[in-house]
Amino acid sequence: MKAEYGRLLETVRAKNPLVHHITNYVTVNDCANITLAIGASPVMADDIHEAADITRISSALVINMGTLNERTIASMLASGKAANAAGIPVVFDPVGVGASELRNQIAVRILDEVKVSVLRGNISETKQIAGMQSTTKGVDASQDDLTSADDAKAVAKKLSSDLGCVVAITGAVDTVSNGEAVVCIENGHPMLSGITGTGCMCSSLIGSFCGAASDSLFESAIAALLTMGVAGEIAFNNAGDKGNGSFHAALHDAVSCMDAEVLMGRAKTHETLY
Amino acid sequence: MKAEYGRLLETVRAKNPLVHHITNYVTVNDCANITLAIGASPVMADDIHEAADITRISSALVINMGTLNERTIASMLASGKAANAAGIPVVFDPVGVGASELRNQIAVRILDEVKVSVLRGNISETKQIAGMQSTTKGVDASQDDLTSADDAKAVAKKLSSDLGCVVAITGAVDTVSNGEAVVCIENGHPMLSGITGTGCMCSSLIGSFCGAASDSLFESAIAALLTMGVAGEIAFNNAGDKGNGSFHAALHDAVSCMDAEVLMGRAKTHETLY
Amino acid sequence: MKAEYGRLLETVRAKNPLVHHITNYVTVNDCANITLAIGASPVMADDIHEAADITRISSALVINMGTLNERTIASMLASGKAANAAGIPVVFDPVGVGASELRNQIAVRILDEVKVSVLRGNISETKQIAGMQSTTKGVDASQDDLTSADDAKAVAKKLSSDLGCVVAITGAVDTVSNGEAVVCIENGHPMLSGITGTGCMCSSLIGSFCGAASDSLFESAIAALLTMGVAGEIAFNNAGDKGNGSFHAALHDAVSCMDAEVLMGRAKTHETLY
Repeated sequence: MKAEYGRLLETVRAKNPLVHHITNYVTVNDCANITLAIGASPVMADDIHEAADITRISSALVINMGTLNERTIASMLASGKAANAAGIPVVFDPVGVGASELRNQIAVRILDEVKVSVLRGNISETKQIAGMQSTTKGVDASQDDLTSADDAKAVAKKLSSDLGCVVAITGAVDTVSNGEAVVCIENGHPMLSGITGTGCMCSSLIGSFCGAASDSLFESAIAALLTMGVAGEIAFNNAGDKGNGSFHAALHDAVSCMDAEVLMGRAKTHETLY
Repeated sequence: MKAEYGRLLETVRAKNPLVHHITNYVTVNDCANITLAIGASPVMADDIHEAADITRISSALVINMGTLNERTIASMLASGKAANAAGIPVVFDPVGVGASELRNQIAVRILDEVKVSVLRGNISETKQIAGMQSTTKGVDASQDDLTSADDAKAVAKKLSSDLGCVVAITGAVDTVSNGEAVVCIENGHPMLSGITGTGCMCSSLIGSFCGAASDSLFESAIAALLTMGVAGEIAFNNAGDKGNGSFHAALHDAVSCMDAEVLMGRAKTHETLY
Repeated sequence: MKAEYGRLLETVRAKNPLVHHITNYVTVNDCANITLAIGASPVMADDIHEAADITRISSALVINMGTLNERTIASMLASGKAANAAGIPVVFDPVGVGASELRNQIAVRILDEVKVSVLRGNISETKQIAGMQSTTKGVDASQDDLTSADDAKAVAKKLSSDLGCVVAITGAVDTVSNGEAVVCIENGHPMLSGITGTGCMCSSLIGSFCGAASDSLFESAIAALLTMGVAGEIAFNNAGDKGNGSFHAALHDAVSCMDAEVLMGRAKTHETLY
């Protein structure tokens, strides 16, 4: 399996897929830069008069709910449907679901009207979507929801089965399920939660990998999160003690310099089959 | 007093308050990252269908007029009123007031309809709001308005009395008044005005401190500006000669690494009672 | 000629022109910071109720189509007309033209209704506007359009004559024409295409130079692209091997530290007269 993640990284770099983002204005620059750093090309376009057109020329669509509004909600739905019609993978990042009734409604609506390929969120967001009791705190995972690794595995597996898509839950340990298997990724560093946008960047990386290998959505999601986890470790080695600004730059450095050998050599992935 | 600022910093880190921002898309990423760096949690949400809901689950609201538009103006007002109703402190940053009739009108309207806890601006913006003659140049303070420290103190004190809120005027020397006392902060570095967003980040820091200590708005505003000033000095020590990009990263480093001891040890604050 | 570029840089730093941007939310922070780094002042304002007012107090207007929408399109047109009426130079960056019918229509409309001073784009975008066959890939230049330097020169010269404005085509070699002469700039570094926003930042730099020297639009556009090219070389020298994050910070460092002597000393410009 680990060799597969390295090969997928090389595939992204070779294919340079175009990844359409309809995303928030807080972390959009980081999303664009991380997409370039992994070897894909970002394009951001959210006006209803072009959103679906841009999706159709892209290899993947990332829908990120971070700063949703009436104008962009319509574009998310139109692009999602266009992606489905064209067989283009859709990554959905339900940022802050649970924090407002609007976010709850829109998350449900997107999942109803668009066939999502990969859902990525933190444990609070994914529990909220799974209809479980969750406590939310803005856009970050609540401490109360940070339970055992077994809990995340159960949520990922159930949600994956319920929705019929790959589910990726990011946290201290990342958990990815395709409904049949669950892979846990024990790479990463606590400083990743100290800067904004690392969750959004994970979704962009998933979009980049899925855009390059749309027949391997499960492995693509894992490879993307593995890339971020390993990059976080390398970034901390290189700059972490200096503080958040240096860590942020070092994270982009690490993703841009990542190669298959480093990725596979540092991978701490564990698979559970059900 | 100086010990109080250190304690407030520790309170922010201990309480991790959620700070709702309705802010501009130019510096929003820096605002989110500086909020995280000081130990608070940022949430950005500006759609009218959720703005007030998000405010109600937050510990502070920051209204920043940087790239205001019809859609976000409505949300600023709705969130401001929701904050007032719930007793949540409101920080108002009237970016660029004086540069257009729209900004003048909206600043007046926000101050009319929302009870602001802390107003933060540069000398041009605060003079404009005080109804004094000011010359504005886009979103930066005009050279013509950079008069004596005594002038800033008078503006801060008068505006604070008139509005019944804490007024913080940032510049080479920062000036904060609660209508009765004026505190000047002589920390900082000229490079802070060479990168975009340092004013907005000051407002985010004020929101973070007020969210953690809503019964100490005056001291919170001072502690926040002191944090930015001291961080600017440390950033220049560490990276300033290299240029703006390195200084920017070093500034985020310095805020994330700030502790009470360093803050108090470097504080150059002077209080005048009237 | 090379001495002229150095003098223009000094003029920007001396005059500190205000540069109004109506631009995208992906790279807007980089645009603001690069404008400050070169010695100008950025102001971003896109609401229709103030856009033209802000333009009128500015020394240059930059219209960037990156994330255009109905709301901002109206403001782009209003500001463009206000700039024309006041004799303020207009820089137009038709980001991603060719990628959607909306972008094609709006680019045509802006060029019809606004007298543009400098058009800047990559080879795909400029070929699209020139009505030539181009293949587009999102917002980046297509490999298929990267033909010979002679090709870019021909496109720049023809488009400049057709539109009656300065045309700047950025790429491995930058090409600028005023319809009579073509100047090629052989400075730069491949890593500039590895981070988002370097094209947008070029447009902001052109706006900064044109705002300081509106009687020398051709030389201003050349000086701006030369600044970015030389800064890219210096940034790679200082940080390039570390990766994209370090290069990004080093690029801002290099622009903020640029002086006339370094700019002239490293300039590799070649002029062809027709």
